[in-house]
Amino acid sequence: MLGVKGKRRLLPLFSRKPGKSLEILIYYTMIKTDILIIGAGPTGLFAVFEAGLLKLKCHIIDALPQPGGQLSEIYPKKPIYDIPGFPDVLAGDLVDNLMNQIKSFEPGFTLGERAETIETLDDGSFIVTTNKGTRHHAPVIAIAGGLGSFEPRKPPLENIDFYEDRGVAYFIKNPEVYRDQRVVIAGGGDSALDWSIFLADVASEVTLVHRRNEFRGALDSVEKVQELKKLGKINLVTPAEITALHGTDKLEALSINRNGETAFLEADHFIPLFGLAPKLGPIADWGLEIEKNAIKVNNALDYQTNIPGIFAIGDVNTYPGKLKLILCGFHEATLMCQSAYQIVNPGKKYVMKYTTVSGVDGFDGSRKEAPKAVIKAIE
Amino acid sequence: MLGVKGKRRLLPLFSRKPGKSLEILIYYTMIKTDILIIGAGPTGLFAVFEAGLLKLKCHIIDALPQPGGQLSEIYPKKPIYDIPGFPDVLAGDLVDNLMNQIKSFEPGFTLGERAETIETLDDGSFIVTTNKGTRHHAPVIAIAGGLGSFEPRKPPLENIDFYEDRGVAYFIKNPEVYRDQRVVIAGGGDSALDWSIFLADVASEVTLVHRRNEFRGALDSVEKVQELKKLGKINLVTPAEITALHGTDKLEALSINRNGETAFLEADHFIPLFGLAPKLGPIADWGLEIEKNAIKVNNALDYQTNIPGIFAIGDVNTYPGKLKLILCGFHEATLMCQSAYQIVNPGKKYVMKYTTVSGVDGFDGSRKEAPKAVIKAIE
Ligand SMILES: Cc1cc2nc3c(=O)[nH]c(=O)nc-3n(C[C@H](O)[C@H](O)[C@H](O)COP(=O)(O)OP(=O)(O)OC[C@H]3O[C@@H](n4cnc5c(N)ncnc54)[C@H](O)[C@@H]3O)c2cc1C
Ligand SMILES: Cc1cc2nc3c(=O)[nH]c(=O)nc-3n(C[C@H](O)[C@H](O)[C@H](O)COP(=O)(O)OP(=O)(O)OC[C@H]3O[C@@H](n4cnc5c(N)ncnc54)[C@H](O)[C@@H]3O)c2cc1C
Repeated sequence: MLGVKGKRRLLPLFSRKPGKSLEILIYYTMIKTDILIIGAGPTGLFAVFEAGLLKLKCHIIDALPQPGGQLSEIYPKKPIYDIPGFPDVLAGDLVDNLMNQIKSFEPGFTLGERAETIETLDDGSFIVTTNKGTRHHAPVIAIAGGLGSFEPRKPPLENIDFYEDRGVAYFIKNPEVYRDQRVVIAGGGDSALDWSIFLADVASEVTLVHRRNEFRGALDSVEKVQELKKLGKINLVTPAEITALHGTDKLEALSINRNGETAFLEADHFIPLFGLAPKLGPIADWGLEIEKNAIKVNNALDYQTNIPGIFAIGDVNTYPGKLKLILCGFHEATLMCQSAYQIVNPGKKYVMKYTTVSGVDGFDGSRKEAPKAVIKAIE
Repeated sequence: MLGVKGKRRLLPLFSRKPGKSLEILIYYTMIKTDILIIGAGPTGLFAVFEAGLLKLKCHIIDALPQPGGQLSEIYPKKPIYDIPGFPDVLAGDLVDNLMNQIKSFEPGFTLGERAETIETLDDGSFIVTTNKGTRHHAPVIAIAGGLGSFEPRKPPLENIDFYEDRGVAYFIKNPEVYRDQRVVIAGGGDSALDWSIFLADVASEVTLVHRRNEFRGALDSVEKVQELKKLGKINLVTPAEITALHGTDKLEALSINRNGETAFLEADHFIPLFGLAPKLGPIADWGLEIEKNAIKVNNALDYQTNIPGIFAIGDVNTYPGKLKLILCGFHEATLMCQSAYQIVNPGKKYVMKYTTVSGVDGFDGSRKEAPKAVIKAIE
C-alpha cells in the first residue's frame, strides 16, 4: 500500500488486471497527512493554523463544495457580533479571513464528499474513506463536523436519485458547468434567488420555480430577481412545483404543475435549493460515545473522544458547560493540536511560542514576522 | 452601607464628624456591579462583552492607566498572527477593537489602581478594595490578572517614593499634565523613545537620559529621536544616569552623572521608564489555590477557583493543558459568564442565543442586528 505505515493490507498493489489499471490506481490513491480534519467549518479551518504552528500538516474533508460550514452555507451575508476583536464581521468574510490565515500551511481539501467509514490500523493510525471512495490516512483524526454533514433536502420526486450527476444537483460546485445550458432552479430562499441571479449571466435559460408567489430573502436579492424577470433574463414560474423528471440517460425535461395545470419544460439541469439539513450521519457509527447527537469528549484536557487519536472539536462535541459558539471551537482546536503533536511526535517536547515573538513559517516557504527592534546609537 | 446587600457593616454611615464629610464620603463610595473584573487585558475586556449578552454589568480594575494588559503595555505596535480571523493584527488595534466591541455594555473602569484586599460578605458577595482605597462590591469576581499587576521597575534612588505624585511618575496617564513643563525621561527602550517624541510637542523641555549610547526600539522611533535631537527639541544625555532627586515639597531638580561628572538639572517632572514587571501580588493572599504563580481553576466546567463566586480566566489561571494564549482567555471568559449568570440570577434559566439571530442590545440603548430578510412577492 502506497506509503501507509500500518500493517493491514487491503489489496496487493500489483494484482492489477490489464485494462483495469486506472480504476485500481484511483482505488489505491491514499491522501496522507498528520491531522485529518472532518469538517471545514470555522473550527476545522482554524485547527489547520494551530497545527501549522506545530509543523503538523492537515487535510480537510467536507460534504459541502466550499469551506466555511454553517457560516458559508446558512448565513454568509449575515453579521456575527461575538467574534472576539470584531465588533461585527460578515460570516462569509470571517471564513475568507480564516482561509487567508491558514493559506501558507497549505491544507489539502476533499470537498463535496462525506466521510463515511473509518478503519484503525495496527499502529493506531486511521484510514477514513468518503462516500466517493477517496481514502485518507492519518495518525490523528479531528472531527469538526458541526451539526453534521450538510445533506440537501431533496424534493420527493420518484426517480430523482437516478438523475443525480445526470442533470440534477443540490449544490453548485462549478458554475461553468451551466454555461449556455437550460437551467431550472426550484426554491424560495436566498440560495434560489442568488443562484438565479448569478446564472442569469451564465446559462442560456434560467427558470425559477417556487410553490408560492412570495420569496424570502435579502431585499436586494428579491429586487434583483424582479428586475431580471422584467428584462426577460429569468423565467419566473409561481406558484408552481416540479412534479416529474424526464430523460433517458440524463435529464431532458421536467413537468411543472402550476395552478393544477401541468406543463412540460425542456431543460438540461434541475437544481432544487430547498436548504440543507445537517446529519451526524455515518460518524455516529464509528464507536464514539454519543450524547444528544454530539460526541462526548474530555474537556478537562484536550477534547479527545473515547477512541485515542480521535478528537472532536467545535459544535460536534459535547461536555459539561458546552456552548456551541465559534470562539469555543477556536480554543478547542488549539488545545487539541497540542495532544495531536504528542501523537505525531511521540516523546518530543514542544515549547509553545508566541506568534508575535517567533513569527509564522508557512509550509510554502513564506515567513511572517514582527519588524525587529533595532539597537542603535543616537549621536 | 450604601446599598450593599451583605449584612456586615464596616462603619456606620452617619458617624461623620463635621469637616470630615468629604473624606468619609469618599471612604463610603462603593462601586457596585454584577461582575467585578480584575485586569483589563484582552480576557477581562472580552468578558464584558459576554457578560453584556447575558445582561450582566461589569466593572474593571487595572493597575495600569490604560486597558489592554500585556498588549498595550509590552507590545502595542507588534503584530499578532494567531487571533482567529485575523491573519495579522497589531496588539494595540486588537485592544481598540475589543474596547469598541464592549462599548455599548458601558463597563466601568478603575484604572491606575491595584486590587489589594477582598472581603466576603454574609450573602457570599465580595468587596474588593484597591491600594488607593476605592471599594467595589459584586456577587461575582473574575480575576483576569494575567501575569499579575504590572508594577514599574523603579530606579534605586533614595527618596524616590517621596516624590511620587510630586513630579515623579512611572506611567503617563494624561500627557496634558506635562504641557509647558520641563520633563526628564530616563530609559532606553520603546516607551522612553516614544514618550520623548510625543512630549517634545507638549512639554517646554524634554531631556532623555540613558545609561548607554545605544537605544533599543523600533527603527522609526530611533530615527525620529535622532531628528528631534538635531532640531533641538529633545536634549539627549548619554551615557548617563540620574543619581539624585531634589526639591522641598515637589521635584525641582535632578543630579545627572555622565562619564563620572555630575551635573545639576532643573526639572518639573521625572519619568523613569525602565519597564514593568508583573507581580501576582496581593491576590496571592486571597486564599486561592496557587500553583506555579497561577490560580488553579476547574477547567472541566467554568474556570471557577476554590472559592465559589471567584473565577480566574486568561493567563492568570492554570489547569492541565493550559496555554497562555489570548484566544484561550476569550473562551474561558465566555464559559465563566454562564456560571456568573447563575450566581447573579439564581434559579433563572438562560437560553443561549446567537448574536447573528438575536442581535446585541447595548446598555446604552443601542441595538445592533442583522438586516432582516424580507418576504416579498415577485410579479
Ligand atoms: C443562523 C445561525 C446564526 C449563528 N450565529 C452565531 C453567532 O452569532 N455566533 C457564534 O459564535 N455562532 C453562531 N452560530 C453557530 C456557529 O455557526 C457554529 O458554532 C459554527 O458554525 C460551528 O463551527 P464548526 O466548525 O464546529 O461546525 P460547522 O460550521 O457546522 O461545520 C461543520 C462542517 O462539517 C461538515 N461535515 C460534518 N460531518 C461530515 C462528514 N461526515 N463528512 C464530511 N463533512 C462533514 C459539514 O458539512 C460542515 O460543513 C450561528 C449558527 C446559525 C445557524
Ligand atoms: C511579547 C509578547 C508577545 C505575545 N504574543 C502573543 C501572541 O502572538 N499570541 C497570543 O495569543 N498571546 C501572545 N502573548 C501573550 C498574551 O499577551 C497574553 O496571553 C494575554 O495578554 C493574556 O491576557 P489577559 O487578559 O489574561 O492578561 P494580561 O494581558 O496580562 O492583563 C492582565 C491585567 O491585569 C492587571 N492586574 C493584575 N493583577 C492586578 C491587580 N491586583 N490589580 C489591578 N490590576 C491587576 C495587570 O496590570 C494587567 O493589565 C504575548 C505576550 C508577550 C509578552
